[in-house]
This record gives sequence, C-alpha cells and structure tokens, in this order.
Amino acid sequence: MKPGSHISEVLTPQPVIDEDVMAANISRVQGYFDSIGRKFRPHIKTHKIPALAWAQVEAGAVGINCQKLSEAEVFAEAGFEDILITFNLIGDERLERLRALNERCRLSVVADNVVVVEGLAAAFGGKRRLTVLVECETGMRRNGVLTPGAAVDLARAIVGAEGLRFGGLMTYPTPHSEERIEEFYSETMRLLEAEGIACPVRTVGGTPSLFAAEKIKSATEHRAGTYIYNDRAMVRAGHCGLEDCAMHILAMVVSVPEKGRFVLDVGSKGLTSDLSGFADYGVILEYPEARIVKLSEEHGVVELDGDGPGPSVGERVRIVPNHTCVVSNLFDSMVFHRGGVVTRVEKVAARGRVW
Amino acid sequence: MKPGSHISEVLTPQPVIDEDVMAANISRVQGYFDSIGRKFRPHIKTHKIPALAWAQVEAGAVGINCQKLSEAEVFAEAGFEDILITFNLIGDERLERLRALNERCRLSVVADNVVVVEGLAAAFGGKRRLTVLVECETGMRRNGVLTPGAAVDLARAIVGAEGLRFGGLMTYPTPHSEERIEEFYSETMRLLEAEGIACPVRTVGGTPSLFAAEKIKSATEHRAGTYIYNDRAMVRAGHCGLEDCAMHILAMVVSVPEKGRFVLDVGSKGLTSDLSGFADYGVILEYPEARIVKLSEEHGVVELDGDGPGPSVGERVRIVPNHTCVVSNLFDSMVFHRGGVVTRVEKVAARGRVW
Repeated sequence: MKPGSHISEVLTPQPVIDEDVMAANISRVQGYFDSIGRKFRPHIKTHKIPALAWAQVEAGAVGINCQKLSEAEVFAEAGFEDILITFNLIGDERLERLRALNERCRLSVVADNVVVVEGLAAAFGGKRRLTVLVECETGMRRNGVLTPGAAVDLARAIVGAEGLRFGGLMTYPTPHSEERIEEFYSETMRLLEAEGIACPVRTVGGTPSLFAAEKIKSATEHRAGTYIYNDRAMVRAGHCGLEDCAMHILAMVVSVPEKGRFVLDVGSKGLTSDLSGFADYGVILEYPEARIVKLSEEHGVVELDGDGPGPSVGERVRIVPNHTCVVSNLFDSMVFHRGGVVTRVEKVAARGRVW
Repeated sequence: MKPGSHISEVLTPQPVIDEDVMAANISRVQGYFDSIGRKFRPHIKTHKIPALAWAQVEAGAVGINCQKLSEAEVFAEAGFEDILITFNLIGDERLERLRALNERCRLSVVADNVVVVEGLAAAFGGKRRLTVLVECETGMRRNGVLTPGAAVDLARAIVGAEGLRFGGLMTYPTPHSEERIEEFYSETMRLLEAEGIACPVRTVGGTPSLFAAEKIKSATEHRAGTYIYNDRAMVRAGHCGLEDCAMHILAMVVSVPEKGRFVLDVGSKGLTSDLSGFADYGVILEYPEARIVKLSEEHGVVELDGDGPGPSVGERVRIVPNHTCVVSNLFDSMVFHRGGVVTRVEKVAARGRVW
C-alpha cells in the first residue's frame, strides 16, 4: 500500500489511522496537561510505533511509558531517552538486559514488593543507579502496595539499596478515583517527608478520566496510551466522541446468508475478543444499529434488524473497535491516511513484545 | 532459546509445546480417520507452522486447510501441494494472487453466494481451472447456503463457469450436528445426481465432536485444527483430557498484593480475551483451583481461595489456555520441548496473516 493510494484499495481486514484525528487527540491531551502545569508521559502500548511516540514527545511529552522491557528495548533502539517501565521486572536474564538499557537512557522502573526490589538491588550494585518507583494500589486490584505505610516500607528498602534510587510513586487506577489517589499519595508523601525521603515523581495513569487529572493535586505526571487512537470504550467513558476515534478497522462483507445476518472477513484474530463490557465486538460506522454478535477467528457474524436493505456481498465497512490497544498488537503494519488518501505505512515495531 | 536448554529458562510469558503430547494428538486423530476410511485434512490456523503441517501430512493427511489466502501463500511457499481455503475470496488483488497460487498447487476454495462465484468465474476464465466447493450452513449460523436447493443452485453456477470446477460440499458445523450434516449432504447429493452433477468431495470440520465423524456417512473428508495442541475448551467438549493439551503458557507470578490474589506477567496480549464460554481465562496447572479473573494487556489477575500458602513472587506457572488457536497468533515463535528440554524453536510463519 503506497502513499497516495486510497484506503478503499487496502486489503481487508486492516486497521487504518486517520492522521488528522490522531494529531488532534495528541494535541488536545498534551494541551490539557500543559494548561494544568503537569508533565505528560504517553504509554506506547497502544500504538507500539516509534514515529508516533516521536510525535507525542514533539508535542511536549516528557518521555514515554512502556509496559514490558522488550517494548522499552525497541524504543531505546529508536532513540528515546526517557523511559518508564511500569511492570515488576524479575529474573537474571531480564535484569541483565535492564542493566544494559539503563546505560543508554534515563530509565525508571517500578516495584510493589520486596522480592522485586531485592532482585533489582542485587543486579544494580556497583552499576549506574536505577530509578525505582513504588507502585500503589488505588482501586484497580492489580499490582500495587495496599497502604501508604507499605509504600514507605518499600521506599525505605529502595533508598537502602546501593544501586537503586527511589524515584517516587506510581499507580494505574480505575477511572474516577482521583480522590482516592490524592488521599493515598498525600498521606504517603507526609510519611516519607517525616523520614526525610524525597519523593520527586508522583505519576498517575489512564485515559478514561484523564481530564479530571487536575483534581489530583499531589501528582506530578500523568501517563496515558489509548487517547492517541481512542476507541468505543473511551467514547462510553465520556473521554471523547465517536468522531475522535482515529482507528477504523476496514472489513468486507463476504456473506449475507439471510435477511438480518451478514458476515465480515474479520474475527477475533483482527478485532480481538475484548468485549470491554460491551455486548458485542465493535461499532460498524455504516450500520450503527448492527451488532457484531459472534467472532470466529476470521469471521465476524453481524445481526441487523429492520426493513432496510442491509449490506451487499463485497461491500466494505469501517469498524470502531472496543479496545484499540489489543488490535494494534495483531497487525505487523499500520496504515495511515488523511481524508482516505494513504500517507504512510508504519511497522508496528514493538508488536508481540510481551517479555 | 537453544535446543538442549530447559524450559524453566524460557522468558515468560511464552507458550511451549510438548512434542510427545502433540505427536500423540496427531497420531490419535489420523489413526481414527484411517480406521473409518476417511480422508483427513488438518487446519493450519491452530499452529501456522509449516514444519507441523508436514508432520500432519507425513502421518497421512491428504493436504491442508487454510482460512485465508495469505495463510495459503505461506504454506504453498513452504511446498504444500494440496490446499483448501475455506473462505469466500473477493476482490481483484486477492483474485490475482489466487490465480498465481492455483498455478503452483492443487487448490480448492469455497463459495456460499453468487457474488463470490461470479468473481471467481471472471478471474479464472481462460486460466487453469479452480476447484470451488459450496459452503453449507448446518447450524453454525456463520457462512453457508441455507438449503440443499440453494447449494444445488450455486453448484450449477460453478459448473456453468468456464474457469471453475465444482468440487463438492463443505461445512463448518457446531459440535454434535452429525445428523443434520448427513441430512443436508445426502439430500444435496440426491439433487445433484438428478441433474448429473458430480460431487466428489463432502468435507466436514471441527475438533470438538471429531470422533463422531463416522456418523456422517456421506462425508469423504474431515478438517480439524485445534486437535494438534488441544485446549481447555476441547477438554470441556469431551474431545480429550487436560493431559492431552500440548500447549502450556509459561508465566511468572510478579506480585502477591494480598492473600487470595496474585498477578501473572501474562494478560490479553498473551492469553487473548477468549472466554470460550468459561468464566475465566485458563487453567493454572500448579493451582487448578485458582481463577484468572481479569486480564489487562500484560497482567493476569488471579484469585485463589483457601488457607494454602499460595504462590510466591518469582514463581513460574503453566497455563492451559481456553483457546489455543488465538494464542498461536500472538507469538512470533513457538518453543517445543520434550520432558522440559527444548527441542526446537519454530517461527509462527503465518502469524498475523488475516488477509
């Protein structure tokens, strides 16, 4: 697919990204954080494409957020200098790679337990110091220390380790938990101050209630990924409108077996099975009343009530997926366009980097 | 990961395949079809690895089944000579590639509507004939003509097209629909015979009720994919036991935030969100009572009741996924082992080939 060709010629199924919508998403979110005087660090998990992260940094982001070490390696290789990995890193091979990575960029990682801190401490003794933030649980029930007291205990262990530097606090919250985060962070900061432990970074994450970030007075930084493309779940969360969704999955109607049912050439190997709380697998822009009720690996079965004519075999449609980040991870390359004209094709460089 | 190393050194998360279990799965299923005198055609969607398809063909399979043209191209390039693509193929670029593919192997495709047949007819006029089967609906409510009469209408259109050859009938059924398939196929064959149309191939698919295939007297061939690895859904279907699941996803416990909850380093980008009708995302062999209740992209949140000690941070576990075919499609390479010792690493050559 060459620049200048039209997306109507792109082989289906294929996600395509509207350049203008994406640029507006980057600008809108960076503008918000600039306006409240807060640092912003985009999460690259959504796109996994260095060129897009450069656009985010050029707009004003302080650095990038990766979820896995192997993602961070791809982005360090592409020249990024400020990387936060928000995942507990464990194991000799991984720690050896982490040491190499720490020599080539400003790197921070997180920990929510002593096993992780002890592993990092053992690996970084006598090496260039590694910055470690403490991950805090603020409602997500995933990783994170449960109380401010536990956060301070872990901070103390980090401060006490020769090769480590305590960087501050990190959380990935559920939406609309601004008050809870503020409470957790401010109490932890009070306890740390009483022990004379500096806590320079307090980073918070997530796209859904991003525009309420100013309520978290103690935060210094926000991280978000999905906002660059947006998706159906972000529309439901009130973060954006359907017109702000930059990713459309192009698909083709391959069968209309009977009235009220048609079949698309995209299934769970293109849309993923992420329901994200919805009852079906995405919004078909041309048939907003239709429901993608069942996915096989390569088929999407759609039901459409009513007396309208419905689509014909061979017709192409655009789907806004429930969850854009997992779709990115299925495709080796991403097609970008402006007004339907292809502008570029980018390799999804960190696709499949889960280690 | 080199042959001879141990899978306990494989970086998590990573699916690994037990060679002996896989070989037994291949042998058991091929043996069954040999015993009932029926051709067997493995579906490569499950593994997407040519070396595995060779093992299936060497065991006695008549050829292979692909779901998408781009998968078939990968396997034709690897030297496979008998390929059935069970998907409606539409569009000029695709049909041009299909013509090229038809020159280099014994190729069959399917159609369930006249638009597809007309497209194929236009593309193959004056070329080496393409074999086309009619896809029939037998309960799956996906693709397929709804009645034997409609199947005959479409067969007639195929017979009437200069560049096409009518190959027979194809269905992908729901499990335990042997009677319905037999009824559909035998009635269609009666109608075709009355018109003097030969119907050499009657192919049926699916792993779950595969061992009941002998009930479909009219069938000449069976297609199945999942049986080579098996998964939690196949155990529930009664096709196999948990010990027959050749794929285990190796994962690591990265956090134990509180009693009763721990977190794995594998999420929806490793296990996929396929629930396949289950309430959680896989079976942890070391903790069979545990429930993988929530997946983020890179985290698997597990709940485990009871007074037992539960796992420690850094502990490695093995997960039998709900659905193995979608897991294969997330990883660039697959690690094989015998008794824990790595035997080979295979590139998942057709990963991401959805076009």
